[in-house]
Amino acid sequence: MTKIADHRSVLMIASSEADANLYYATRFIAPDDFVFVQTGGKRHLLMSDLEVDRAKSQAQVDHVHSTSLLAAEYRKKYDKKPSYLDLIEEFLKSQRVQNFEVPGNFPAQYLDPLRARGFQIEIKGDPFFEERTVKSPEEIRAIAQAIKNVEIAVGLAIQTLKKSVIRKGKLYFHGERLTSESIKKIINVKLMELDCIAAHSIVACGNHAVDPHDQGSGPLYAHQSIIMDIFPRDSKSRYFADFTRTVVRGKASEKLKKMYAAVKEGQDIAFKKIREGVDGNEIHGTIQSRFESLGFKTGVMNGRMQGFFHGTGHGLGLDIHEEPRISLGKSILKAGHVVTVEPGLYYEDAGGVRLEDVVVVKKTSCVNLTRFPKFLEL
Amino acid sequence: MTKIADHRSVLMIASSEADANLYYATRFIAPDDFVFVQTGGKRHLLMSDLEVDRAKSQAQVDHVHSTSLLAAEYRKKYDKKPSYLDLIEEFLKSQRVQNFEVPGNFPAQYLDPLRARGFQIEIKGDPFFEERTVKSPEEIRAIAQAIKNVEIAVGLAIQTLKKSVIRKGKLYFHGERLTSESIKKIINVKLMELDCIAAHSIVACGNHAVDPHDQGSGPLYAHQSIIMDIFPRDSKSRYFADFTRTVVRGKASEKLKKMYAAVKEGQDIAFKKIREGVDGNEIHGTIQSRFESLGFKTGVMNGRMQGFFHGTGHGLGLDIHEEPRISLGKSILKAGHVVTVEPGLYYEDAGGVRLEDVVVVKKTSCVNLTRFPKFLEL
Repeated sequence: MTKIADHRSVLMIASSEADANLYYATRFIAPDDFVFVQTGGKRHLLMSDLEVDRAKSQAQVDHVHSTSLLAAEYRKKYDKKPSYLDLIEEFLKSQRVQNFEVPGNFPAQYLDPLRARGFQIEIKGDPFFEERTVKSPEEIRAIAQAIKNVEIAVGLAIQTLKKSVIRKGKLYFHGERLTSESIKKIINVKLMELDCIAAHSIVACGNHAVDPHDQGSGPLYAHQSIIMDIFPRDSKSRYFADFTRTVVRGKASEKLKKMYAAVKEGQDIAFKKIREGVDGNEIHGTIQSRFESLGFKTGVMNGRMQGFFHGTGHGLGLDIHEEPRISLGKSILKAGHVVTVEPGLYYEDAGGVRLEDVVVVKKTSCVNLTRFPKFLEL
Repeated sequence: MTKIADHRSVLMIASSEADANLYYATRFIAPDDFVFVQTGGKRHLLMSDLEVDRAKSQAQVDHVHSTSLLAAEYRKKYDKKPSYLDLIEEFLKSQRVQNFEVPGNFPAQYLDPLRARGFQIEIKGDPFFEERTVKSPEEIRAIAQAIKNVEIAVGLAIQTLKKSVIRKGKLYFHGERLTSESIKKIINVKLMELDCIAAHSIVACGNHAVDPHDQGSGPLYAHQSIIMDIFPRDSKSRYFADFTRTVVRGKASEKLKKMYAAVKEGQDIAFKKIREGVDGNEIHGTIQSRFESLGFKTGVMNGRMQGFFHGTGHGLGLDIHEEPRISLGKSILKAGHVVTVEPGLYYEDAGGVRLEDVVVVKKTSCVNLTRFPKFLEL
């Protein structure tokens, strides 16, 4: 069971499939909203007939209550049919909960009605469960396993690119033209075979790769950079991997080679700096300055953002983007944080380069969970 | 561009990857929260440097604003660095928006701060965009395509079950024992090949199938019911399919055969009743009564829910569960609604049976989008 680190009272109303805090607190997956109450160090779920038995056997909580039994008791007591909010109010009162915390994404529709019923509600932004940012050895193993699976899938894609034939600047494999879509298919299908669910995988070439979140589409070209950014969720553990490599099939331009070397150096700056107590903002700033000093400017050029215009990294876990950040804004790293390190450079006249590894923050250093080698030309 | 059916002012702050209303209003996918403002029949996005160019080329909105440009203007005007909320306030004021609506799931953390800045906020539950429940021909085609893909994938799984060898009550295929996991793998991998992303697919046998949301695990057995409930999202269109069949490899018990006939009859009741103006609750109630009259009781038996204890159906679209409902509670059907029809019966002594098709509501009838045949024994 996820340990409760505090004795505050908490209310959540969400679907644990969509809400990582609720999944973290219950280790139970359900597609529809349900009610979670934490109070006095105990965790309670209020579940519909459809989910109550499964919750009893699967959820890592102290008590699972049937909403239809609670409704029957309510009718007996008050001689009227309860609304959803009546049930929640009655349950909170039975637990003597008057004041409680809700997460920042608590649905606005329940806030005023609960206040009108006399509850004092404090809204706490992320990290809602402070301890969720610090990963246990088991959580780190889950993330490492997901990364290993991505490495297998991207390995297949790179083999395909390597073996491809260059004809008039285009890439062919067994006579078929290689596209962003076909390489994504190889990666996503292999990941599904490994029980990892990939969505929005990026395989972007040439001008597409200059936009960091362009998923890529159409033919892949020789001598241009191809960014592969793959971030599946392991369907067993529910933890995410996040992984990026940039390659060129054929010859990279001199500028692209310099960009690649700079981005790799940017990663190395982060690897050296990351440890407990360091501010993510400082790491990000150092990399930004280094890029500037190497002549890689950032800003709007030719009507479009170019240079290094995203964060260096973010926490990774049950959400793909979570606390802490290595970016603009103060964010102090702690031992046990798991963060991405993913600087990038993007120029219209050269292409895009991004490299991304995942590291565990330690007291005096960091440990890289990503093993995949870094090379530009294939 | 998704039509704006009304001239109210709207604010949303969400990730369109997670929030179907925001995706519906913008047709733009981004993993992190961004700001959407609708006012005077125009749609605006406030986007970070990372997403601003992609939003300009991909989002189906009227204006895309750069938050870093807005921040620069703010600093010039007020001589201080704006917070996220400062930027939103300044933008709303520039658009002369004082009163606006937010959806029911609007994050609680922004509600009080925006009110404190003098905005009048009305919270509107689902359906937030009333027109989202009524599907266009293009949306119906997208759902039908996703269902076709599931039919291909489940067809493969059924071929595997059919060809399996029964040995001491267990199923073997090419010498390997068939499991819930291996059949799910066949389905999920085929779906990924077809660009559909399946998560939480259910292939549940025997006692597992008695719990409607048990995903199933371990060996599959002969002569027991196997429920396959598959509901992927098409990664191109982002629309969901939802599909269930129940089969037995070998001989079904008499009770299971009767349950199957009853569930199929339940579906037929719905198919006959579904049309514009009908209340979903009435359809659900008729099926419940029919099951009761056939001797299939519902309630807690032997300490566990048994019988028919979930809804008959739900709207399907950019969310897997959306308005309207065919369930407890009033919900009037309209032409253009797309709903599932999925009655089920679950008894510990016999197993589980569920059948699910997807239909389009018409003025005087409904049209079934699901073509897959219904048969129990393989």
